[in-house]
Amino acid sequence: MAGSWFNVAVSDESPRYAYLGPEGTFTEQALRALPDYQGATVRPAATVTLALDAVRTGDADGAVVPIENSVEGSVPVTLDELATGDPLRIAREMTVPVAFSLLVRPGTVVADIKRIATHPHAAAQTRKWCAVELPEAEVVHTTSTAAASAALADDTAAWEAAISAPLAAEHYGLEALFSGIGDNEEAQTRFVLVTRPGTPPPRTGADKTSLVAFMREDHPGALLEILEQFTSRGINLTRIESRPTGAALGNYCFSIDLEGHVEDSRVGEALMGLRRICADVRFLGSYERHDGISPTIRPGTSDQEFNAASAWLTRLREGR
Amino acid sequence: MAGSWFNVAVSDESPRYAYLGPEGTFTEQALRALPDYQGATVRPAATVTLALDAVRTGDADGAVVPIENSVEGSVPVTLDELATGDPLRIAREMTVPVAFSLLVRPGTVVADIKRIATHPHAAAQTRKWCAVELPEAEVVHTTSTAAASAALADDTAAWEAAISAPLAAEHYGLEALFSGIGDNEEAQTRFVLVTRPGTPPPRTGADKTSLVAFMREDHPGALLEILEQFTSRGINLTRIESRPTGAALGNYCFSIDLEGHVEDSRVGEALMGLRRICADVRFLGSYERHDGISPTIRPGTSDQEFNAASAWLTRLREGR
Amino acid sequence: MAGSWFNVAVSDESPRYAYLGPEGTFTEQALRALPDYQGATVRPAATVTLALDAVRTGDADGAVVPIENSVEGSVPVTLDELATGDPLRIAREMTVPVAFSLLVRPGTVVADIKRIATHPHAAAQTRKWCAVELPEAEVVHTTSTAAASAALADDTAAWEAAISAPLAAEHYGLEALFSGIGDNEEAQTRFVLVTRPGTPPPRTGADKTSLVAFMREDHPGALLEILEQFTSRGINLTRIESRPTGAALGNYCFSIDLEGHVEDSRVGEALMGLRRICADVRFLGSYERHDGISPTIRPGTSDQEFNAASAWLTRLREGR
Amino acid sequence: MAGSWFNVAVSDESPRYAYLGPEGTFTEQALRALPDYQGATVRPAATVTLALDAVRTGDADGAVVPIENSVEGSVPVTLDELATGDPLRIAREMTVPVAFSLLVRPGTVVADIKRIATHPHAAAQTRKWCAVELPEAEVVHTTSTAAASAALADDTAAWEAAISAPLAAEHYGLEALFSGIGDNEEAQTRFVLVTRPGTPPPRTGADKTSLVAFMREDHPGALLEILEQFTSRGINLTRIESRPTGAALGNYCFSIDLEGHVEDSRVGEALMGLRRICADVRFLGSYERHDGISPTIRPGTSDQEFNAASAWLTRLREGR
Repeated sequence: MAGSWFNVAVSDESPRYAYLGPEGTFTEQALRALPDYQGATVRPAATVTLALDAVRTGDADGAVVPIENSVEGSVPVTLDELATGDPLRIAREMTVPVAFSLLVRPGTVVADIKRIATHPHAAAQTRKWCAVELPEAEVVHTTSTAAASAALADDTAAWEAAISAPLAAEHYGLEALFSGIGDNEEAQTRFVLVTRPGTPPPRTGADKTSLVAFMREDHPGALLEILEQFTSRGINLTRIESRPTGAALGNYCFSIDLEGHVEDSRVGEALMGLRRICADVRFLGSYERHDGISPTIRPGTSDQEFNAASAWLTRLREGR
Repeated sequence: MAGSWFNVAVSDESPRYAYLGPEGTFTEQALRALPDYQGATVRPAATVTLALDAVRTGDADGAVVPIENSVEGSVPVTLDELATGDPLRIAREMTVPVAFSLLVRPGTVVADIKRIATHPHAAAQTRKWCAVELPEAEVVHTTSTAAASAALADDTAAWEAAISAPLAAEHYGLEALFSGIGDNEEAQTRFVLVTRPGTPPPRTGADKTSLVAFMREDHPGALLEILEQFTSRGINLTRIESRPTGAALGNYCFSIDLEGHVEDSRVGEALMGLRRICADVRFLGSYERHDGISPTIRPGTSDQEFNAASAWLTRLREGR
Repeated sequence: MAGSWFNVAVSDESPRYAYLGPEGTFTEQALRALPDYQGATVRPAATVTLALDAVRTGDADGAVVPIENSVEGSVPVTLDELATGDPLRIAREMTVPVAFSLLVRPGTVVADIKRIATHPHAAAQTRKWCAVELPEAEVVHTTSTAAASAALADDTAAWEAAISAPLAAEHYGLEALFSGIGDNEEAQTRFVLVTRPGTPPPRTGADKTSLVAFMREDHPGALLEILEQFTSRGINLTRIESRPTGAALGNYCFSIDLEGHVEDSRVGEALMGLRRICADVRFLGSYERHDGISPTIRPGTSDQEFNAASAWLTRLREGR
Repeated sequence: MAGSWFNVAVSDESPRYAYLGPEGTFTEQALRALPDYQGATVRPAATVTLALDAVRTGDADGAVVPIENSVEGSVPVTLDELATGDPLRIAREMTVPVAFSLLVRPGTVVADIKRIATHPHAAAQTRKWCAVELPEAEVVHTTSTAAASAALADDTAAWEAAISAPLAAEHYGLEALFSGIGDNEEAQTRFVLVTRPGTPPPRTGADKTSLVAFMREDHPGALLEILEQFTSRGINLTRIESRPTGAALGNYCFSIDLEGHVEDSRVGEALMGLRRICADVRFLGSYERHDGISPTIRPGTSDQEFNAASAWLTRLREGR
């Protein structure tokens, strides 16, 4: 990526954020939730890869990309980009409710709608609504929900309506004919702010740590051994997904989110254990949980208990 | 889907197969590997969902769909379609090497190529080759590799070359300017033949069983408990993936492939154990492994040992 | 042992019980707690081995022997005799509070007591009391607490007092100068009624099962594997002890008591699993718990759930 | 115990050893195997408790006591004395083959032998030999094998032969009529040299560590959790025994020997883990194995790997 890709003309203090575009998507909604969004310079990137590469090259200070969707699951490209290439860190997580709207050009009425365009994931999440409300309309797939809206706006579209994030109406001068048309009202997408490596943000007591563990060899008990590194230190996992490493069918790494911060003694010991039994462990960061939920500390796993046990061991070794 | 969707005009014995289209993809290559392909009636479906629905409605006897790709990972829509809706069964698995070709209209030379079209997955798997061989060409994304080829063939394309399965050249009257251009020569895609439920195919000694386990509650040790059902019976897993159930972020089911056949005693006992501790278990079938590798039977887990232990227990209970 | 060892002259229905003698010990107290003690013919045996051999040869219908003491631990000879030789079964368990008395010949006063005799185990359990109440008296060891009393009774003793079970006073015409002199008022001894193999007593819902598991090889995880057979079926252990097999230092078997009855599905499956992974498993019986405590049935481990899972597996295998 | 109990009249450097007496037992054989036995002042103690108390009070620098017998199992009193009271440490282990002899007064012949005296454990280990060679002789029990010999020597015995350690012949002026009469030629007894706490002896690479773990509560998975502290760090156990804590039936502690030294990183981390999950852990020492066998170091558990993982964690926390 050329140094000029990112159009930056700002003071030193102003952060520069890339995000998965186009404009008007849920990712932009997540971006707007950043505390320093107001003073920031922002720019959409065409793909997750381009957004993260902007951070790697220094063209951006951070990138906001989707990482997990409660309906469609993880976003494979984000997981894979974080697992390989130059190291990156997750500095923050944000969730955005997946509230779809049916957007149309001003003046369009229901009877006009023959075809509806949207991204396949959005189509999957509004399938029931469409079947009930617009059973005759054909659903066509676009590369993003925003692309479906953008084409409507510039009159190049072969469709009369787009299913999209509400924000797209503002960007493209469209109207929401229906809102909240998702089949699952609880649906959310989780986004992360990704930066270059640095000192993790301080502990808040309600933190999450993300990592990727590459198995040393694909033996039957390997996953069990990995899990035991966490359970033996009383650490809950909030997400675990296997991902192929690209080497061969059946060769996996595990993308893991756990409760706690790298500064927690129990997390530190588990990370060291993982590092010893795995071919590689990539630390992706410790950051505050979006929901502020503090973990339950199991007996024997608090920092105080770790410190007391460590002092005891020192006494034993010194013969006191 | 209407009963007429599938254009069948064949004898009773002739199987009717749906497959993920369009024509000329790796899926068609997998379809052609079926033993009874010669006499079969086949028809492409626009999506995995449509291909599987054809089986559910009885319009097709079976459907060939991709389930796992060694580079891009699992095919989420296939996993999700198998996990929900009317039950289906995997009757067979096939693997196809992912050997990409750069297809052009006859007469096109390298210097003509300004833009290359392909599916994003294929773009990801040929990224290095393109960067080296055609660094100036722009890569654009289409909904399938075959769509990129088809547009070339009918002259509607805004590109001069398509990255595609070799089979597409035959279908669309194109030429392969380069072959074997994938970045990973070992890359494979795994396909499955999906049918309606029925008696599983007989044991071959080199079988695989697929299932989906829905956790009863999302407590920390739940995945560990699931894994222990297998390890305590000496069963190796060849794939395990978490998938969101669609209910909420963090609510998962596990899609699992294991070594062995439902008729094996150890597999039967593990399935029963899983059924008891899970909210639900969906059995997706037992079928011969594509690679013919027989599992190593751990001491104490053969059918003979299961039978001997069962006879012993009967004697104890009867006081003999 | 000669057929005449056991002095039997009774009707066919009258049970013949051996017990670890001599008369007047806690074992006799346990014997008296048997429901059919009143009509029984009973006879003390000099050792646990002789008592159990009487059952093996048919000279006795059952034998009452100590198996566990809350202060001194298991009774090794009982565990070892049950683990080897002709098979025997535990048909019942009884507990007796360990309530020691200081017995003397009528007329003896505290000032007369220079030496106190008792079994080493009883000495250990009354050490604190003796140190406080009779600090000047010497404690000498005898082969049983009853032997200490018996010698007092026939005037051959080189001591003036015996620490013994209260029952010994009645047998030997002695007086209890002090009662309840044990250092631990909660101390109990557990006894078992041992018979020849036969149909286990019916389930009561509050049962215990005893067994001995011989490891196939002494590899590091062997004990873990044994325990997992129980935990994976939700079975609690109430006692587990390693015992040397006599072959070499470091070669162990495990003597185990667990909650549940051999007729319980979860216990049956765990026993079969154990049988498959162990060199040998000796079933020692299922019997009602002395304390009537019913186990907590973990989700997924009830007989109903086992039956439902079994029916489900049958349907899968039959293609229904 | 009075300060004068131990008859010391030696230079400051001369070690003073107590041992379980009387003279002429296997324990004395073990004592003689100490490297500094030649210059030592030694004294038999009547019981294990007295021998260990001599160390606790400072009357002895060390005590040699039996801890494990390959036929009869552990020596409960030694385990219990080490588990409670003022802390002690195991500084060394020694094994002695259990080679029994039949000792008689000079001139005694086989036909003279009507009764044979020995300790019950020795009787159990020579039962088969006696049944074959001296089937008519009655076996009587004494408090030690040496006591049986001593009584022969001073003509007070009601028996004509003693089964004893060979060493007793020398002490009591007896003759070995038969040697090597144990039923199990492989039988060994393990002895330990016990001292007051101090800096553990340096690592030899073939070390053992002993400890006692007191469970925090007697919940079903407690033993499993304890074992996982070791297996998750690749540590083999060479002995594990449950012992009642004396509080109530079913309330246990675990006496454990493991491969490795407290200075080993993996042992240190496991000890700390144990300390955190247990009500109490008593460290009983690290010492060279009697058999010089070095443990197999599992991948990921060497000191180098521990150090590398620790350095890695430090870098993560510091943002490097």
